[in-house]
Amino acid sequence: MNTFLAGYLDPVKFDELLKNYLDSVEIPDSLVMPMNDALIGVGKRLRPALCYIGAEISGADPKRADFCAAAIECVHCYSLVHDDLECMDDDAFRHGKPSIHSKYGEAVAVLCGDALLNLAFEILIGGCGDKASVKAALVIARKAGVSGMIGGQADDVSGRADRLDTLKEMYRKKTGELLAAALMSGAAAGGADDETLSRLEIYAHSAGIAYQFRDDVLDVTSTSQQLGKDIGSDSDNDKVTAVTLLGIDGAEAACKEYFARALDAIAPLGKRAEALSKLVSYLQGRTF
Amino acid sequence: MNTFLAGYLDPVKFDELLKNYLDSVEIPDSLVMPMNDALIGVGKRLRPALCYIGAEISGADPKRADFCAAAIECVHCYSLVHDDLECMDDDAFRHGKPSIHSKYGEAVAVLCGDALLNLAFEILIGGCGDKASVKAALVIARKAGVSGMIGGQADDVSGRADRLDTLKEMYRKKTGELLAAALMSGAAAGGADDETLSRLEIYAHSAGIAYQFRDDVLDVTSTSQQLGKDIGSDSDNDKVTAVTLLGIDGAEAACKEYFARALDAIAPLGKRAEALSKLVSYLQGRTF
Repeated sequence: MNTFLAGYLDPVKFDELLKNYLDSVEIPDSLVMPMNDALIGVGKRLRPALCYIGAEISGADPKRADFCAAAIECVHCYSLVHDDLECMDDDAFRHGKPSIHSKYGEAVAVLCGDALLNLAFEILIGGCGDKASVKAALVIARKAGVSGMIGGQADDVSGRADRLDTLKEMYRKKTGELLAAALMSGAAAGGADDETLSRLEIYAHSAGIAYQFRDDVLDVTSTSQQLGKDIGSDSDNDKVTAVTLLGIDGAEAACKEYFARALDAIAPLGKRAEALSKLVSYLQGRTF
Repeated sequence: MNTFLAGYLDPVKFDELLKNYLDSVEIPDSLVMPMNDALIGVGKRLRPALCYIGAEISGADPKRADFCAAAIECVHCYSLVHDDLECMDDDAFRHGKPSIHSKYGEAVAVLCGDALLNLAFEILIGGCGDKASVKAALVIARKAGVSGMIGGQADDVSGRADRLDTLKEMYRKKTGELLAAALMSGAAAGGADDETLSRLEIYAHSAGIAYQFRDDVLDVTSTSQQLGKDIGSDSDNDKVTAVTLLGIDGAEAACKEYFARALDAIAPLGKRAEALSKLVSYLQGRTF
């Protein structure tokens, strides 16, 4: 984990939080390992870190966002398990390890994903103790759903995202919506007002699109070793990307523009949103 | 729809309720038809009817259970879409029509199921306006999840249910838990006390197991026309069933025993639970 995110989330403690939630449900033997592999000790934990940053912006104790942070990571991890399925992207590896379906089979992977999505909502509803927490849970539910992340995934699968406007829309839904859900739910759980939530949403959507544009550039400019996966996989698949539509320089320029939009959105929040400015610098600087 | 259930649920009005919820989310073109096919105008609507019966038992206006009834049908329908996948049961037909994956492809079916599960929770959290509704939503979340229905499905896929005790456990989780979720959430939304909820749970678990035992018998005794699907499919698959373990007469006897347990559980509720006694008579009488 990079130093920036480490200031907002201790990966060891966060794993303990997730393990406690896993221990709160009765998991059949055949799903114990798959659910653990998919959820524990994996990934950058960017979304839960955003959730805690959202709580900080609202001025609340980060602990109030624990249930949202855990739930949103369950949503993120289920979406990776289902995205990797043979019938979807057919990815054999994830985080440098065999993907769930390649290790345990397609049927177990479908159920493992279903179980993680359902667990996210067990956690969320279990945390619905007051109006602020219900509002936070609802933000995650909507943005994870067919109006948000799943809708973006459907646009990706259907090949609808073949022009710049539809590609941006797909990136906004597939990546931006869950980043927005993380940031907004943490802030909502801490009682943030609607104007703040709206600024955080624009920030997250813009950063999500910029992030994906950068990914498209790195896919053609990075070395395979840096990226930890095969490079040029998009062009091999004849996939429409920001680079195929705008060229490398054009995609880089668009990426910069969206990071700038993200910063503009949060400027009125002042020092409260300092972490989000730093996050943009960190994301702009990444080369893999 | 049979006359018994029609007293508790008007299928046309219930479809309107579901359509309103579908209209409340933004569905990408590629998922509009699949989600409609999977959710609207299909099935016996047994679970939502149970939800309204639960509300009646609690003495509340059935409208209080609307959000639970709609959500639980979304859960039931998503589970059928995923169960029918090639990598699961590989069923080409459902309710006499092509199943979602055979009509729209495996990837769309995975996303359609994910979208319906997520929608169930958008509806549930959207309905969390007071403590009773949060309690109702949590019952559904837990029983739909890995401790309940998904856990039963995992036991089915893993072949763990190969003895009478594990078979019963699998049937309880795979079928009984969602029936229990329906009945208990309707009652909880109406403010039923914990003792009543516990009696309804035992009723639903017992009825669920009895229902599956009856299915196992009908699979070998019905004609294909009566059942609306290929008969003997379980034995063709070398599947362990109540009939392979107990014989037809033994399975029938066990089925009767579990229906009797269901009735015993609700006896102390008296006239309030009359609908549930009638439901057992109806389920015992079915021959297809």
